[in-house]
Order: sequence, then structure tokens, then C-alpha cells
Amino acid sequence: MDNFNFYSPTYFAFGKDREQDAGALVKRFGGSKVLIHYGGGSVVRSGLLDRVKASLNAESIPYVELGGVKPNPRSGLVYQGIELCKREGVDFVLAVGGGSTIDSSKAIAAGVVYDGDFWDFYCGKYIDKALPVGTILTITAAGSEGSPDSVITNENGMYKRGATGDAIRPKFSILNPALTQTLPPYQTACGITDIMAHLYERYLTNTKEVEVTDRLTEALLLTMIHEGPRVIENPDNYEARANIMWAGMMAHNNAVGVGRSQDWTSHDIEHELSALYDCAHGAGLAVTLPANFTYVMHHDVMRFAKVAVRVWGCQMDFDHPEVTAKAGIEALRRFFISIGMPKYFAELGAKEEDIPKLVNSLCRGNGRPGCLTGFTTLNEEDCATKPGFQMRRPNIWKRFFWNIQTLRSATR
Amino acid sequence: MDNFNFYSPTYFAFGKDREQDAGALVKRFGGSKVLIHYGGGSVVRSGLLDRVKASLNAESIPYVELGGVKPNPRSGLVYQGIELCKREGVDFVLAVGGGSTIDSSKAIAAGVVYDGDFWDFYCGKYIDKALPVGTILTITAAGSEGSPDSVITNENGMYKRGATGDAIRPKFSILNPALTQTLPPYQTACGITDIMAHLYERYLTNTKEVEVTDRLTEALLLTMIHEGPRVIENPDNYEARANIMWAGMMAHNNAVGVGRSQDWTSHDIEHELSALYDCAHGAGLAVTLPANFTYVMHHDVMRFAKVAVRVWGCQMDFDHPEVTAKAGIEALRRFFISIGMPKYFAELGAKEEDIPKLVNSLCRGNGRPGCLTGFTTLNEEDCATKPGFQMRRPNIWKRFFWNIQTLRSATR
Repeated sequence: MDNFNFYSPTYFAFGKDREQDAGALVKRFGGSKVLIHYGGGSVVRSGLLDRVKASLNAESIPYVELGGVKPNPRSGLVYQGIELCKREGVDFVLAVGGGSTIDSSKAIAAGVVYDGDFWDFYCGKYIDKALPVGTILTITAAGSEGSPDSVITNENGMYKRGATGDAIRPKFSILNPALTQTLPPYQTACGITDIMAHLYERYLTNTKEVEVTDRLTEALLLTMIHEGPRVIENPDNYEARANIMWAGMMAHNNAVGVGRSQDWTSHDIEHELSALYDCAHGAGLAVTLPANFTYVMHHDVMRFAKVAVRVWGCQMDFDHPEVTAKAGIEALRRFFISIGMPKYFAELGAKEEDIPKLVNSLCRGNGRPGCLTGFTTLNEEDCATKPGFQMRRPNIWKRFFWNIQTLRSATR
Repeated sequence: MDNFNFYSPTYFAFGKDREQDAGALVKRFGGSKVLIHYGGGSVVRSGLLDRVKASLNAESIPYVELGGVKPNPRSGLVYQGIELCKREGVDFVLAVGGGSTIDSSKAIAAGVVYDGDFWDFYCGKYIDKALPVGTILTITAAGSEGSPDSVITNENGMYKRGATGDAIRPKFSILNPALTQTLPPYQTACGITDIMAHLYERYLTNTKEVEVTDRLTEALLLTMIHEGPRVIENPDNYEARANIMWAGMMAHNNAVGVGRSQDWTSHDIEHELSALYDCAHGAGLAVTLPANFTYVMHHDVMRFAKVAVRVWGCQMDFDHPEVTAKAGIEALRRFFISIGMPKYFAELGAKEEDIPKLVNSLCRGNGRPGCLTGFTTLNEEDCATKPGFQMRRPNIWKRFFWNIQTLRSATR
């Protein structure tokens, strides 16, 4: 196990009707004037926004509002939010929504107390200062309610990048599973996929002797496999929603990922897709994960066999572990399809002629050194000499996307 | 799942040599004059105390010292610590040791800023104010490094009681697995047992639909079963120590126990034993857990069958689930014996003639209403009418201890 620091000071208020505590929690964590940041539509229609305002009013806490956050949240609205907060003297940002709203709120909170352009944080600058952020979660997916991360799409070029810093960890997060019951099955499935991606990307490690975090990660995957289909079948299932909600937070606050190398290449690949095609992040991951895993499996067959046996209940083929490893990846792919997720890049709107642009932005965009690192190094070069690779793979990125294309045409 | 709050704001600095960060962390969390609180012996001999002092000196942070904490830490030393802190103007308590030292430090920290007798907190008063506490952990067991709890033995009557409050959650905890490598196998085994008890006592719930916390608890039990024997066999195994250390924290900061009823009756029973006989807490639990579980098993056979199958790898007997349930309890008992823990109460020094005294203190001591509640209600009365019990069990506490006595004589 590697040395690490772990710091997750968010106060979680979990359960039915907990949004009524919003005002008291803002007060507890030092807010005296609030920006309520949200998307729109359902938050307003469901009456949630009114309940949140009533809770702030009950504590005599003034507020301003900024709605309009879209999935794959945009830099433009962040600039608006920063300006609004400065003008109005806001000292607390309250996100009411899903991961996009929370990420947008975090960006605003960091930008308000920073003299430069907030985008600096999304080019690698660590966020060490921000207004306090609170969240009222309505979509279980991104894990942003308990994480120090934020992902924003820059409208100047349409590319997505992440920023991080303990300063943007929410002071509190209100997790009421009932608020997620109105989510349509497709969005619910996207959330389930995102959570499972956060777990798999922690699971794919090169660090040895990490039994505790392996087991914890497997536990959360098993939970998702059990509870996921239950909410797809019955969106009103409060109990299944509740289990998924806590699993989603635990999957991404890093308690189950400490002390080990991780692999975020699938997320990086997906970010290019959702930035360019504005597809749902979870849907992009459902296609990317199994494709990527099939590609990198030979780097550590036993690790893929382990998750296949422990999580998917595959029988271990002791003579041919790669058979078990592949069966686990296939089980993951089938699971995503079973909950309504796409199988092919084309279903996301991706086009073959965009491959050079995607690969270039992925491997060379925003100061990247021409490759992605994680479980293994992915670049545009021949990587035949790398340990763990058992065959020559010329121009692996092109080949990766080509594989997908082939798979698509072959099975249509 | 039940509504809950979860708040674990401790900063964990994990890994080799991390004690050298003690001074910087005290500074970060606002300490300007420190009480270093410890047991003695190994902390001094190993040079750890000197390294901690050097780290404080490097940050120019003055300190006073108070050693002498014993296992099952006593109220007398807490009073001394409180007085010392007041006299010297201490504003930060740094625990260097295991659970006993940390619990004693928490008691001192709460007592310093309280006008009344600190024992009030151990009679049920919530701790809402305390000096900040930091820890440098040397024994993986109690989970006190990440918990809001403290257990102290009152020397006036020799009984153990617990106190709780977010104010005594450590501001930081330094977890260096190498510091635990010098622990003798017996103490190591006691720690393993204590951690597994924390997990089982969360597992025994009457709350339905708690798959996520079930799975997480099982994950940590599986980790202990894998790593425990490895450190008993080779105390120098850093990697196994590291896995156990993170599992021990996760087992007790309650991330895996939220939103469900829990069962702390085994801990309560054990506290009477270690208070009266000064036996090791873990050793007492090794005897108490399987005995108690055998006794309460029929309250929810399927729950015991579940842990038997998922954690101990028992085959499910679908026609006779109670066979599987019992096999799981037997596997737990055998595991404890295999790592060197006792099997019988007599091995702890317990005497048959003390049973009335033990039962009275347990069920009626310190304001208790004549029973213990948790997974099921345990009292001195006939509980034949209680749902889940399938036979008359007159005077169950006497019977409980009598069972143990019988078991002991029968197998000797």
C-alpha cells in the first residue's frame, strides 16, 4: 500500500425530508448570504426549490439565485455565477441538483475568491481557497457531493477538464433518496454506470497488497449490481435508491481508493465524447469501460479475473485465467445493456471522421504529454516494448477506436 | 435504511514515517501548546516519543508530557491530565499510543473545557466541546483514531463506561503501520478481534434493506480473515499491517454502519469482564462474541446464515438455514482460537461466583434499565414471549453465563 492522506470532512445529512435542514446547516457552516445554484425544470416543478428557500427564510438567511446549469456544465455560467456572487456579497454557495450543478457550484466558489481566471484551476492549479459549498443532491451519480473534484466544459473549444482541491469539498451534503425517485430510468442508469466506473477506475491498480480497498470496492460494485436493476424496474423504490445513494458517495470520496494507483483513462476518454457530442456522461462510460478493459486486460489478467470471480460470480478458469477475465468484462457490458445503456459509440452520436480530433484532444490537449497514464500507458505510439503488453499494438489509440468501430459494424 | 448523520472530519496521514508530520499537523489544526499523552514502555524505548518531540520542536511548539496510561485506561490519570492541562495552558492533546491512550486523551480534552466532573460524559452527557485531539496510533484495534467515542474505567468501583461526541473526533490521526510491527502476537490478535467485533456489532441489525452497509462490513471482515493470520505468522509484514490498519479505522468511524440499528451487547458484556478482571479487551471479546451469537442466533437465523455464506464461505443449507448460521459462528470461534485468543471465560480470570455481580452491573449499573438493547433485548427476566425466541429461557443472563460454564467444563 502506498502512503496517502485522506480527508473527508463533509457533514452528511441523509434520509427523508432532510432538505428542511438546509438553513440550519448553512448557518452551522458559517454562511450569511447564499447563492442557490441549480439547473431548472424538476427542481422548480417538484417544489424542492421552494422548500429550500423556506428553510433559508426560517433561519433569516438572505439568498440570490442562479439557475440554468446543463448536463456537462459550461464555463459561461460559471463566469456569470462568479460575477453575481461578487456583486451581491455572497459567502456561501448552495448547490441544488446533481453532479453538474455541484461541479458548477464548486467552480463558482473557487472563482469568487481568486483574482485570476477560474479556468486556471482546470488547467492543473490546485484549489486551496474557495467559498464554502453545501449541496442538496437530486441525482446519484457523480459523487461530487463528497469529493474534492469538479469537471467543467470549456465552451471555447468544447472540451472538458477537471479541477481538484480540499477547499471545494462540500461542508455539508443533504442526501435524501426520495429526491431521486422522480429521475427517469435512462438518467438513473447513467448514474449507476458512473458510480460503477468510479469503482472500476479505482480497482484497476498497479499497487500490490491492497486487499482492504479491493474488498471495499468489490462490496460497492456488488451493491450496485443488486440495487441497480431494482430501481430501473421500480423508480419509486426508496430503499434501493437509499443504498445506491450511500454507495455513490462512498464510491468517490476515496475511502475505498486510498493508497493505490488508480486508472482514470476511461473517464478521460469519455470526457472527450461528451464534450464533443454532448451525450450523457454515464452513457459514454457504458461504451468506453468494457472497450477499454478489453484493450488493457492483458496488462494484468489476474486482476480482471479477480473482479470477475468476486463481483460477477464467474467460475475461475485456473488453466486459462484470461477466459475468466474476459467473462467478467462481458458480464459488465451485459449489465450496462440490461439497464438500458448503449453498446456502441455510434449510439452516442460519435462519428468515425472525428477520431483524429478526439485522439488529438485526448492525448495532446491541454498540456497532456501525448499519452494517458493509469493502469497502463495509452498513447499514439507503438507500445510493444512496454512490460505487460504481450503483442505489438501499433498506434494504439487509432486501433482502440478502430476496434470499437469493427465491433459495431460486425454485430449490426 | 434509517435516516442518519455522518461526519468524520479527521485528517488521516497514512504510511511510513508519517509521525514526522506531527508538528506540522498540530500547527495546521490550531495547537500552540501540547500535552503529549502516552502509556510508556515501547513508545519511549522505540524512540517514537523522541521523534514526535523533534517534530514539535521543529515547529517551535512547546509541550508537556503525561505518560502512564494503562490498558483499560483509568479515571485517576484523566483527572491528573485535566489538572496538568489547566495549569500549563495546554490547548491541544496529542495521543501517542493505542486505543487506551487515545480514549484517555479524549477524556482529558473534554474535561479541560468542562466545569463539572468529566465523568458526567461517561454517564450519558454528550460531549459538545473539547480541546482538539490528535493521535499517533501504535496499536490497531479500538478504532478510536477515527471515532467520536472514548471508554474509561472508573476506579471507584472498577466499571467501564463510554462517552461520545463529535468534539472528541481527532483532528488528525497519523497511521504508520510500521509502528505496529513491534506488537507481540497476543496483543495483535486482541486488536484483530476487537476490529472484527466492531464489524459484527454493526452487522447485527434489525433494519431492513441495508445491502450497502452489509456488503461494506462483510468486505472488512473478509480483509481481517485474510490479513489477520498473516501478521500473526509474521509480525513484520508491513503490507498486512497496513491493510489491517485502514480496515480498523473504517470498521469504527461508522461509514459502514450508518442508517441501521446496531448491537453493542457483546462490547457491554466484555466491558464488565475487563473492568473486573483487567483482562485484555480483545481477549474478552473473543469469548463473548461466539457465546452471545449462539444465544441470540434464533432472533434472525438468515442474517447469521448470510454472514456465514458471504464471509466464511460456508455452503448454504437451504433446508436448514440454522445449520449454516451455526457453522458461521463456529468458524468465527475457530478463527479466534487460531490466532491465539482464549475460548473460555475462565481463561480471562472470570469466576463463577462473580456472576451475580457481573450481571447486576451489566443490566442495572449506571442507570441502565435492567436490560441491554440491540439486536435483541437481553435482561434477567423470562423472555419467552418475545418474537424471535423459540423457547423459554428463564433468567437469561444467568443462563447465558451458565451456558459458558457448561461449555467450559464439558470440553475440558
